[in-house]
Amino acid sequence: MNKLLMPQDVVGGSFWLISVAMIGAAIFFFRESGRLSSKWGTVMNLIGVIALMSSIHYFYAKNLWVMNGQAPTALRYIDWILTFPLSILTFYVMLRSVTDVKRGMFWRLLVGTLIWVIAQLLGAYGYMSVTLGFLVGIVGWLYIIGELYMGDAGRTNASCNNESVQMAFFANRLIITIGFSIYHIGYFIEHLAGGANINSLNIIYNLADVLNKIIFGMIIYSAALEDTKKGNKN
Amino acid sequence: MNKLLMPQDVVGGSFWLISVAMIGAAIFFFRESGRLSSKWGTVMNLIGVIALMSSIHYFYAKNLWVMNGQAPTALRYIDWILTFPLSILTFYVMLRSVTDVKRGMFWRLLVGTLIWVIAQLLGAYGYMSVTLGFLVGIVGWLYIIGELYMGDAGRTNASCNNESVQMAFFANRLIITIGFSIYHIGYFIEHLAGGANINSLNIIYNLADVLNKIIFGMIIYSAALEDTKKGNKN
Amino acid sequence: MNKLLMPQDVVGGSFWLISVAMIGAAIFFFRESGRLSSKWGTVMNLIGVIALMSSIHYFYAKNLWVMNGQAPTALRYIDWILTFPLSILTFYVMLRSVTDVKRGMFWRLLVGTLIWVIAQLLGAYGYMSVTLGFLVGIVGWLYIIGELYMGDAGRTNASCNNESVQMAFFANRLIITIGFSIYHIGYFIEHLAGGANINSLNIIYNLADVLNKIIFGMIIYSAALEDTKKGNKN
Amino acid sequence: MNKLLMPQDVVGGSFWLISVAMIGAAIFFFRESGRLSSKWGTVMNLIGVIALMSSIHYFYAKNLWVMNGQAPTALRYIDWILTFPLSILTFYVMLRSVTDVKRGMFWRLLVGTLIWVIAQLLGAYGYMSVTLGFLVGIVGWLYIIGELYMGDAGRTNASCNNESVQMAFFANRLIITIGFSIYHIGYFIEHLAGGANINSLNIIYNLADVLNKIIFGMIIYSAALEDTKKGNKN
Amino acid sequence: MNKLLMPQDVVGGSFWLISVAMIGAAIFFFRESGRLSSKWGTVMNLIGVIALMSSIHYFYAKNLWVMNGQAPTALRYIDWILTFPLSILTFYVMLRSVTDVKRGMFWRLLVGTLIWVIAQLLGAYGYMSVTLGFLVGIVGWLYIIGELYMGDAGRTNASCNNESVQMAFFANRLIITIGFSIYHIGYFIEHLAGGANINSLNIIYNLADVLNKIIFGMIIYSAALEDTKKGNKN
Repeated sequence: MNKLLMPQDVVGGSFWLISVAMIGAAIFFFRESGRLSSKWGTVMNLIGVIALMSSIHYFYAKNLWVMNGQAPTALRYIDWILTFPLSILTFYVMLRSVTDVKRGMFWRLLVGTLIWVIAQLLGAYGYMSVTLGFLVGIVGWLYIIGELYMGDAGRTNASCNNESVQMAFFANRLIITIGFSIYHIGYFIEHLAGGANINSLNIIYNLADVLNKIIFGMIIYSAALEDTKKGNKN
Repeated sequence: MNKLLMPQDVVGGSFWLISVAMIGAAIFFFRESGRLSSKWGTVMNLIGVIALMSSIHYFYAKNLWVMNGQAPTALRYIDWILTFPLSILTFYVMLRSVTDVKRGMFWRLLVGTLIWVIAQLLGAYGYMSVTLGFLVGIVGWLYIIGELYMGDAGRTNASCNNESVQMAFFANRLIITIGFSIYHIGYFIEHLAGGANINSLNIIYNLADVLNKIIFGMIIYSAALEDTKKGNKN
Repeated sequence: MNKLLMPQDVVGGSFWLISVAMIGAAIFFFRESGRLSSKWGTVMNLIGVIALMSSIHYFYAKNLWVMNGQAPTALRYIDWILTFPLSILTFYVMLRSVTDVKRGMFWRLLVGTLIWVIAQLLGAYGYMSVTLGFLVGIVGWLYIIGELYMGDAGRTNASCNNESVQMAFFANRLIITIGFSIYHIGYFIEHLAGGANINSLNIIYNLADVLNKIIFGMIIYSAALEDTKKGNKN
Repeated sequence: MNKLLMPQDVVGGSFWLISVAMIGAAIFFFRESGRLSSKWGTVMNLIGVIALMSSIHYFYAKNLWVMNGQAPTALRYIDWILTFPLSILTFYVMLRSVTDVKRGMFWRLLVGTLIWVIAQLLGAYGYMSVTLGFLVGIVGWLYIIGELYMGDAGRTNASCNNESVQMAFFANRLIITIGFSIYHIGYFIEHLAGGANINSLNIIYNLADVLNKIIFGMIIYSAALEDTKKGNKN
Repeated sequence: MNKLLMPQDVVGGSFWLISVAMIGAAIFFFRESGRLSSKWGTVMNLIGVIALMSSIHYFYAKNLWVMNGQAPTALRYIDWILTFPLSILTFYVMLRSVTDVKRGMFWRLLVGTLIWVIAQLLGAYGYMSVTLGFLVGIVGWLYIIGELYMGDAGRTNASCNNESVQMAFFANRLIITIGFSIYHIGYFIEHLAGGANINSLNIIYNLADVLNKIIFGMIIYSAALEDTKKGNKN
């Protein structure tokens, strides 16, 4: 059975819109990657894979919402477990492509992000105290931010001598700081502040995903384009 | 269950036809892009992504119409939010590939188109006065047309020294002016002039999409072909 | 629910066979196109897109027939509207790749084919007199044949100096003349001669599509292979 | 509805296994083809298309068996009509890529294989005497074997001066002789020797398809790998 | 019908997560393979195909679990029959790409792995004594481990003079030793030690697959990246 998406169903509409936008973004990133300076190849593939995996989740989420009227909360956490680490690793991959990077940075970013997102999952579903999950999640997130601003990653970026990478690093670090805070705010409202209107919550999460996945990816693409135009073709 | 498409169901038939045509166009654009002068690569990928996203919407729309007998109005707006900005940005991408373009043009075209299409959406679904939505939509559309004829984009095009780009710019600007007016006429008839026959309206919108997506894309492809033949291979 | 294809259901079997053959052909054409002399690229993509769009129609047609026991007549016309013009344009694309061709030929072939196939559609579904639809269809078809034998296309082919193109032109022109006559004969039997056995009619149309799409494409592929072997690599 | 595949359902399990193996093989052949000496490109695409079309049939067959408990006999014949000729033509394509081959060989192999497989189909479904179908099928098969051992194909192979092609030719000719005999044995048991246990028959046919499609393809791939390593890179 | 994945359904969630992760990994491996030193191409395609076939199984397994509440035990064995041999053959393919390898190693690894996995299948489903299946499986597994540490494969690796291959060989041999032991432990618990909680068992198998397929593949990718960076570009 096909069920009509109602104009009044703003949340359902936003699920629809984002699922198609994610597929479009994934294919655009994959296709453009071959046209850019070769050092951007891996990071373009990463943001393509992020968008692709997210589009799968959003298609399911849209169906659940439009047909069953259910919020895909468990799907969101699964999506985040997969896409948060990959998003954070884009910083590492960009640095690695233009300068020497110590392998430790890879592990710090990966493990930090996994602690961050898994703590939230455990808290949200009662496998850990709600407050503890929130706090550990915050700490993991702050640790990543610290690494990106003042840690090894931040310092390597400052001295990497590639303006395009630095531009993408600067903008996307801001997205990690501000855009990704939405997930913590959502968690707080939902689990610690007495719950939220399910419609608002889902729209907010959806908009966050547009910023944190598609715009995040477009910024990297834009930096790759600049860098390729400058003739840094290697 | 499979439901037979009835010969009498002209609207259903046009949904069918366009959904398959969109997929065919997307794959054709993607495959041909590798055969053209490299500067046309990004714009070919853009029109491919537009056709691909639209084909997804049309397959759903066809199912809704043929099986449930429902008009996919909400789907149309979602499609337009995604494809209008990408269509308008093809002008920017073409100019950027042959001459120096100020970054401001990108933002003016993007924001102008978003205001245009979102105002219509809000008006159509009662989140804004129907008349105001119509008027703001018209203003956004006129602003884009102004930019393309007399604004920075128009002037850059006039001096860009690439006849193929100018040909595509000229023809597609006309499509934005005339072909995209159909969406405003449809809005007017449906929401301000007492409503329309749902069959006629959907056929008109479908034909508009053929013009504004497939023919729009073919014009760009055709210009790219000319340019490649002339040996402007870079 | 899956429904068993019965061995006695010859028509259903032929739908099955052709839908898979079409997909196989599309993928084969797409993959081989990169291995051939570059001038054959666009025409290989065209026959690939024709086979791909047709496979979509045949998968739906097979389902309708095997599960609902219904003949997919409306789907056939939709398929023909999309694939006839593309098939006829392969002649133009081949000529264009080896010699100078006037743009008028493109438009004559495209418009002639559209008149041909749309007249048949209108006649078959009662939007035009059955006889008139038949006659206009015949005239459109004869016009295309005339163009291919004695018109600009025929003359350009005779003087194009590429034996492989001339071979494909010769063989496929014959297919347009003989293979495509089946659609007119089917129309005549069904609408003017008192109707036909629905099984025979569908088998005949299916065989026609194998000839007019897959073998038509294989002839072009075969010419491209010859030409590539001769070292006309440009 | 999803239906559990039971461990006791050995036939269902073999359908499952082969459908996924066929997809895996198709994608592996397609991806590897670009890494091999260019003369192996077409034959790699052929075996990829064979595996791909077969995987479509096996996915349907698996569903029919697991969910409806029905044997996909009609599907098998459709598969064989498509894949037998393509398999036999791999011999022609390999020879053509390393030496001069007369066009007649193509037609003898194609027509011989079609007579072989269509006679069996007609016999099995009562459009021809069961015995006659069996005998004509055997004759067609023996004709192909004769052509491959002692006919033009066999002689051309003997003098083609490419050890890798000769290795693949030798091994796959053996598969045609022994592996393809299974289809005749199955036909004999089912239609002339009083019928067979449907489970055994389907497992035997499934194993035959693994040998005659996947291993058949792996042998060609293996020869292509050897040849590429030897530096016959053209 | 879509059925909501419940947050409490940890097993269902892990099926979901892994099915999407497998698709993402497959596409990432395929896309990156073209960017690496050519000798890594085949092994990258192998790990891509492993992940792709596994993702198909996991999507089905997830549906069975979430919708029917059934454990996909039979599917697991089918997956293992396909992916175990391919995983073990990655060692052979890596060695072959950097040094001379005797063909016997290929057959020893392939046949050893098939005995290993098929013995387990036969034991688990009662076609062989449960204990015998367990023991033969163990022996097959130990034989492979012996081959990789002290046999021809181990010695060839020790003298292959490519540090990246040796790194991947070392790490993945450890995975075969430790990670793959989980399947034996699971078999023992399920069939010899009185059965296990179905939830725990499936989570353990799922985690094993993440280690033995995705991390296994990432280690090869990582070695390929190192090797490519060192400029061993051939």
